Amino acid sequence: MRQVAILGIGQIKVDEHWDLSLRELGGNAAFAALQDAGMDKVDSLFVGNMLSPMVSGQNQLGTFFSDWIGLWDHESVKVEAACASGAAAFRAGLMAVSSADIESALIVGVEKMTDKAGHDVTAALATAADADYEVEQGISFVGINALIMRRYMHEYGWKHEDFAPFSINAHANAVHNPYARLHEKITVERFEKSSMVATPINLLDASPIGDGAAAVIIVPAEKVASLKGKPKITVAGSASATDSIAVHSRKDPLFLSAAYLSSKKAYELANVERQDIDIFELHDAFSIMTALSLEACGFAERGQGVRLGLDDEIGPNGRVPVCTRGGLKARGHPVGATGMYQIVEVVQQLRGECGNTQVDGAKIGMAQNIGGSGATILTHILRAE
Amino acid sequence: MRQVAILGIGQIKVDEHWDLSLRELGGNAAFAALQDAGMDKVDSLFVGNMLSPMVSGQNQLGTFFSDWIGLWDHESVKVEAACASGAAAFRAGLMAVSSADIESALIVGVEKMTDKAGHDVTAALATAADADYEVEQGISFVGINALIMRRYMHEYGWKHEDFAPFSINAHANAVHNPYARLHEKITVERFEKSSMVATPINLLDASPIGDGAAAVIIVPAEKVASLKGKPKITVAGSASATDSIAVHSRKDPLFLSAAYLSSKKAYELANVERQDIDIFELHDAFSIMTALSLEACGFAERGQGVRLGLDDEIGPNGRVPVCTRGGLKARGHPVGATGMYQIVEVVQQLRGECGNTQVDGAKIGMAQNIGGSGATILTHILRAE
Repeated sequence: MRQVAILGIGQIKVDEHWDLSLRELGGNAAFAALQDAGMDKVDSLFVGNMLSPMVSGQNQLGTFFSDWIGLWDHESVKVEAACASGAAAFRAGLMAVSSADIESALIVGVEKMTDKAGHDVTAALATAADADYEVEQGISFVGINALIMRRYMHEYGWKHEDFAPFSINAHANAVHNPYARLHEKITVERFEKSSMVATPINLLDASPIGDGAAAVIIVPAEKVASLKGKPKITVAGSASATDSIAVHSRKDPLFLSAAYLSSKKAYELANVERQDIDIFELHDAFSIMTALSLEACGFAERGQGVRLGLDDEIGPNGRVPVCTRGGLKARGHPVGATGMYQIVEVVQQLRGECGNTQVDGAKIGMAQNIGGSGATILTHILRAE
Repeated sequence: MRQVAILGIGQIKVDEHWDLSLRELGGNAAFAALQDAGMDKVDSLFVGNMLSPMVSGQNQLGTFFSDWIGLWDHESVKVEAACASGAAAFRAGLMAVSSADIESALIVGVEKMTDKAGHDVTAALATAADADYEVEQGISFVGINALIMRRYMHEYGWKHEDFAPFSINAHANAVHNPYARLHEKITVERFEKSSMVATPINLLDASPIGDGAAAVIIVPAEKVASLKGKPKITVAGSASATDSIAVHSRKDPLFLSAAYLSSKKAYELANVERQDIDIFELHDAFSIMTALSLEACGFAERGQGVRLGLDDEIGPNGRVPVCTRGGLKARGHPVGATGMYQIVEVVQQLRGECGNTQVDGAKIGMAQNIGGSGATILTHILRAE
């Protein structure tokens, strides 16, 4: 398997882009990545997207974007794994380039969510859950996460406000990220007084949706001679794992076994220990997911994930920096694009381009993207050389 | 790049399966493939599907099926390229196994289409076209194909009845395929008197939709020692190419350039000439597509594809046997599953399991799957060793 390097990155601000079509959203991120890589074409295109058939009436996004970007003739395909679509597309591109069949790949995560009325997007997001055994009962996707959070609080004795540091950290970091949707710091008081969404999840436990797109260009690592002063970023580990799609079928609804399995395999492939990870861009779609991800990946004992927030260990200068560019919570969560924002953000950290939220001397970064309430989880480890 | 062999195949009859859920459709084909391969588990799962988010309210089909099939923990993902989703998933699995990261893959193409009212499926199928510049004008997917067929008839002087042999051949072959949706021979008279759908396309120019699923299991070819009397089937060539998604943007709407490009590359990879192809399972979603595919892949001159039908060269004993198991026209077209039916059918031919429609001594077979009106086209060449 050939090693792969990331040659270019691109992203647009997560926002309500009512003036940009689906084409323009993905295209703008793709053009930025091509420019960053100093390339004007690539061999193949992999698109991560979840909602476009339902929200934009558009399927076949691989060809749709190759057409718009001007990559006619080239291989193009869309990959979907609910909110993990971005990382799933990245892994598909990785396998294409590492199989020696293809010499370069553009990977774009894109989602247009804000042009439809809210109830439509809520219904569309619920397709990440089990249609027959969860959604059919009338539960929404946030409702499923609320049941998990409630059980966690009951099982381990945490109060709602104990989750506040996760959101406070994400919001504080997003202030310094021009591509983030939300640019306002929050406090514990505001966190506690925020509107209820699905008890115990309130508005500040939940990540905001948005329109967004992020892209990278990958090539075989041996083809990358020098990068004009930028560190060479390689993909040291990539792994994907699954759990049952419905929460009630899991052995333990409070353990993200697919996060455990995919991070374990990624650590092995990258030949690193969990302690070697300098930044961890995790999938904080809801604050409970931050706790569960930290635990499943070995950064905290079972039931003790929230303690990392309370002990102030998750900031850019902490022991386990998470959500350094705002995370899903404040950068925003354009679902099928999120996994690609995470990869782009890890690259920014490894390049040392993060200003006020730069993690000093970051050499190894991890991105983890979750589909559904823990059903599909991909972990990628990037390394600066 | 490691060579890959097909170890098992499975399929269910294309039909209106109102008694089978989406889970059961795909699961039944997957279980049949596992049984055929003599395996009870695989390393990874790739699912090809187009309509499930819209028609069944279910996304994340990779994990959805790994859950149902009992492949918990394993890598799983869905790939979508409109009606070419099946072959696109096959190619994704191929790259995974050939990249040496994964030792076996189950690939399932699945589509459940008949539980919704007709107009919903028509709208869902239109997501294969350009939402902004084609569908927004009010045209349906069959309408786009009708424009292409009308132009072809005008340009080259063919009459509607000249297309009849394509449908007659497909229907005649399907009679001998227990998995085909339609089991009735048709005549030129019936072809001409069939109900109009979108002039000049009538009901017997068009393939019927249906519920269906087909699956294969692939492993590295070097791992396959002997197959108990069955020939070893390897993937000799695999290629994917694209054109613009909207017909009006193409240089020539009567030339399937993505079929030309992907077949050319597949011939090169397999080191064969077009004349070496013993069977060609092409994408006859509409009779016009049969003509265009034959021309783009080099079996007929431009504008002369219909002549192969009129000259009786496309039957199982003809020079270019097509749709040997009924094709999309009579086996049926469960869109995201179709590409996998084609692969399964080529394997059946190379194994010599096709009875009355067996192509004598078939050693090299080609399957070609089209997404949209020619936008994404994948060509696979299989070889019996």
